[in-house]
Amino acid sequence: MTGPVASPEPPARRRGRPTRAESAGTRDRILAAAREEFSARGYDKTSVRQIAKAAGVDSALVHHYFGTKEQVFAAAVEVAFAPALGAPDTLLEGPPDGVGERLVRFALGVWENPTTRAPLLAILRSAVTNETAAAVFRRLVAAQLVRRVADRLDLPDAELRAELAAAQLVGTALLRYVLRLEPLASADVEQVIARVAPVVQRHLTQP
Amino acid sequence: MTGPVASPEPPARRRGRPTRAESAGTRDRILAAAREEFSARGYDKTSVRQIAKAAGVDSALVHHYFGTKEQVFAAAVEVAFAPALGAPDTLLEGPPDGVGERLVRFALGVWENPTTRAPLLAILRSAVTNETAAAVFRRLVAAQLVRRVADRLDLPDAELRAELAAAQLVGTALLRYVLRLEPLASADVEQVIARVAPVVQRHLTQP
Repeated sequence: MTGPVASPEPPARRRGRPTRAESAGTRDRILAAAREEFSARGYDKTSVRQIAKAAGVDSALVHHYFGTKEQVFAAAVEVAFAPALGAPDTLLEGPPDGVGERLVRFALGVWENPTTRAPLLAILRSAVTNETAAAVFRRLVAAQLVRRVADRLDLPDAELRAELAAAQLVGTALLRYVLRLEPLASADVEQVIARVAPVVQRHLTQP
Repeated sequence: MTGPVASPEPPARRRGRPTRAESAGTRDRILAAAREEFSARGYDKTSVRQIAKAAGVDSALVHHYFGTKEQVFAAAVEVAFAPALGAPDTLLEGPPDGVGERLVRFALGVWENPTTRAPLLAILRSAVTNETAAAVFRRLVAAQLVRRVADRLDLPDAELRAELAAAQLVGTALLRYVLRLEPLASADVEQVIARVAPVVQRHLTQP
């Protein structure tokens, strides 16, 4: 999965007009448009044609760079998760008794910022309503994020622990940022961190 | 909101053919169809016409009994949540140090059963992808479920506590039953209860 996303080479096959297609920015523009469209409509209601239109390119070019809609989605998810995927290493390196707070602070920080929130929202909306999108989520998030956290825990059931900690974080984000349940939605972020951190800490490290 | 759902009287206005319309079961059949359709497609992609077709009635009859699509959705949500709405009283009556386990056991029990899971899934899918459905969720779940739990807690920030406990439960259900992240999805339910109960207990009662 990392090949097509990281690859700087021009595509091997040629289709459509070569002028804009050759631009290094075209791929990024398609990905940004895909994120926007998936975020606004969810996986089911987003078509490759809409993504192409939003990116100002021909549909054939989207297929050419990415393949199917599922593959465009996977690439968009992968780009969206890139910062998060690098985070566990740093977050898990510090003192073990502060890992809960560091993870919660990082996760809520990503959700607090509208720019970084949009792709997460796109993934969540799509994965909840579509099985193909859910499979992409499982493959990327489970295999990478959860396993990376679990690998650092020297405890039985490390993956289950990481997933239940993730459940508290995902649930908090869902109720605060998506469903906007009050008083949680308007609570000071530091107050939320203070309440959620010990719980995440407990999931991850309590014997 | 409870009036139209609980009402046993026949509708005041008359439209469509009177024969099946008069049946006490028609309303329930429409509600069951609405739950199925919202569950399978989410709020956005469900139309009153589809619900009517699934229930074997005319669209006019759905409008006649419930009004708009939003009102059909609210009625379906209310019926789906009826057992849960009665639960907090019983669950919160027992010994305070077992309230976490009682709530987690009840909530996971509802999600474990495919029949009771379907309407919850419908609400979750719809509320995550559509603002109208999210508003219905906020009004019913927040106003009733969260407040009822909070009312029993004699602690500051009772509603915030109840919502963060709900976040752990909703997040666990989302990862286990909707996104089916392993090993959480296949973990024994007792193991999940044993890990989640102390966390819910902590949110609700820790000073």
